Amino acid sequence: MKKHNFYAGPSVLNRGVIERTADAVLNFADMDLSLLEISHRSKQFQAVMDEAVATFKELLDIPEGYEVLFLGGGASLQFYMVPLNLMGKKAAYLNTGTWSTNAIKQAGFVDKVFGTETVVVASSEDKNFTYIPKNFTIPEDVDYFHYTSNNTIYGTEIRKDFDCKVPLVADMSSDIFSRPVDVSKYDCIYGGAQKNMGPAGTTFVVIRKDALGKIDRPLPTMLDYQTHVKKGSMFNTPPVLPIYTCLQTMKWYKEMGGVKAMEQRAKEKADALYTEIDRNKLFRGTVEAEDRSRMNVCFVLNDEYAELQDDFFNFATERGMVGIKGHRSVGGFRASLYNGLEMESVQALIKAMQDFEKKH
Amino acid sequence: MKKHNFYAGPSVLNRGVIERTADAVLNFADMDLSLLEISHRSKQFQAVMDEAVATFKELLDIPEGYEVLFLGGGASLQFYMVPLNLMGKKAAYLNTGTWSTNAIKQAGFVDKVFGTETVVVASSEDKNFTYIPKNFTIPEDVDYFHYTSNNTIYGTEIRKDFDCKVPLVADMSSDIFSRPVDVSKYDCIYGGAQKNMGPAGTTFVVIRKDALGKIDRPLPTMLDYQTHVKKGSMFNTPPVLPIYTCLQTMKWYKEMGGVKAMEQRAKEKADALYTEIDRNKLFRGTVEAEDRSRMNVCFVLNDEYAELQDDFFNFATERGMVGIKGHRSVGGFRASLYNGLEMESVQALIKAMQDFEKKH
Repeated sequence: MKKHNFYAGPSVLNRGVIERTADAVLNFADMDLSLLEISHRSKQFQAVMDEAVATFKELLDIPEGYEVLFLGGGASLQFYMVPLNLMGKKAAYLNTGTWSTNAIKQAGFVDKVFGTETVVVASSEDKNFTYIPKNFTIPEDVDYFHYTSNNTIYGTEIRKDFDCKVPLVADMSSDIFSRPVDVSKYDCIYGGAQKNMGPAGTTFVVIRKDALGKIDRPLPTMLDYQTHVKKGSMFNTPPVLPIYTCLQTMKWYKEMGGVKAMEQRAKEKADALYTEIDRNKLFRGTVEAEDRSRMNVCFVLNDEYAELQDDFFNFATERGMVGIKGHRSVGGFRASLYNGLEMESVQALIKAMQDFEKKH
Repeated sequence: MKKHNFYAGPSVLNRGVIERTADAVLNFADMDLSLLEISHRSKQFQAVMDEAVATFKELLDIPEGYEVLFLGGGASLQFYMVPLNLMGKKAAYLNTGTWSTNAIKQAGFVDKVFGTETVVVASSEDKNFTYIPKNFTIPEDVDYFHYTSNNTIYGTEIRKDFDCKVPLVADMSSDIFSRPVDVSKYDCIYGGAQKNMGPAGTTFVVIRKDALGKIDRPLPTMLDYQTHVKKGSMFNTPPVLPIYTCLQTMKWYKEMGGVKAMEQRAKEKADALYTEIDRNKLFRGTVEAEDRSRMNVCFVLNDEYAELQDDFFNFATERGMVGIKGHRSVGGFRASLYNGLEMESVQALIKAMQDFEKKH
């Protein structure tokens, strides 16, 4: 049965990307060797790394002066590396959910050891992160302002590059490549690959080179962005296969018309599903309408139908839906509509919601 | 043409392991989804993680009280995590090459920030790391003694578990599963997967649980082994595909007769190649005979034939040999004979050396 993959991450990838990866696992670049067993120093893999960096820069229209890295360790490690490398004295954070909270916590470790100061400018924790705080002030005496552009768990999203007097830093793990970004406003953009870019196992970091080397503290080699910038992400063995699959995804984005085309696609998929949630008498969305994410659509049964939760889950599962259970912090349902998901799958989910409504 | 893969890492994997990985990339666990696009929280991947941990423990005969982790970030990150988590006041290191040197350097970062003391008990740097230091004393007032069991670059190996009064810590990146290990002597054994265990992208850590939680310093969440122990390597998204491939490799080891069978296999392959190096008038080994690695065999042309270096490289390449160029720190040739390499490939290299000798 055709599966409709709504997992929150790792998550759906384009089928052509998957097939090209399987081919490379059997025989990479006509080397008669698997992608899994070739040296990262081979000219064939160096070409993959070079093309991945170049394609990333092209897709996101990254200006001169920035480097793109592909590291291991996950975005969770970046929560610590960002303040360790970029917070000289003070940094400002916006708290919009679990990942922001963790990023703030890791900056706190830098505070404890090196005497810096992490300031939380606003939080939406008071309403279980169902909205994006507005009307907060970003201090002008901080080294950067950090935010999470899309909150995978709660289904809220910030689709703008803040205007302020300090550089931005953003965790774009779950909405990278779903809209154009004005990279010049950022000192750093980072994220795990396993939503909009590839499989689990690699983390992208876009770093403004001028922002590095300004702090005066001992930086362990692997935690120093300068190490990875100098060595082109090859100081140590990089996650070879995940990077290859990321490249295939990015090439597919290019073929499809780039980030603007992906933005249009994301808008169409999200609009279709939110329209059904708002129309269907059984369901309601969980977040403020203006802050709704295009990537992760969170919804629950209306109170009078709450006992149907398991029924709908089974009903949808029988129709090929996978990964629609909401995160335990929110409950209900979550449909992740990452770039790799086809409109056909969104329509299948809408049809299931409509059929289920008719039944009740 | 059949390729003989002597890469130093990432490196040769058993063909069955590669084929099972390619199958899973197309359709994992009959889910009609790719291994690249399934949630790490799915019961199907949880089963992979559980079996990987159990098989690792079984193969290395790990006693109670230890945990096995599969992390991202590479062994190079462990160079810092080990002293950060385990060095309360003082630690001893043996310097046998590039990776030991880097491990010592990272322990130095802990010294700088937290006032600990890293002691180097012996080094073979005086002779370009062509031997393993002997007759050194391991202090009794250190938290652990750290060594690199196999030196991939220089081709030396320590195939014993030191007897001393302090716990051992070892980087076994390039010879794990090539001999039985008395794990009870160790507080920690770690290594990158990309030599004897799987593809690039994950790092194993065997950690004695009692050794954790003893130090009093702020540990960033991702750099704290306790985080990963508590969450079963799933605090954040783990490198899904690399772990799956590691499991396939470990299952193949079990089928083949486990670590003792791998040790016998390693001995036979290394003995055959060293015998040819010692016999052949053109070549000589680069390290002390008693310290020769079974995993990485380093050799050069004898001085009177030195001008034949490129000729032999081309001669071997024409016969399907891949990855035999020595590391730039040593020159000459390096044949890596990891567990995944078949004797057939060693014989092909020996035959090429013999044919080349006849030509000259």
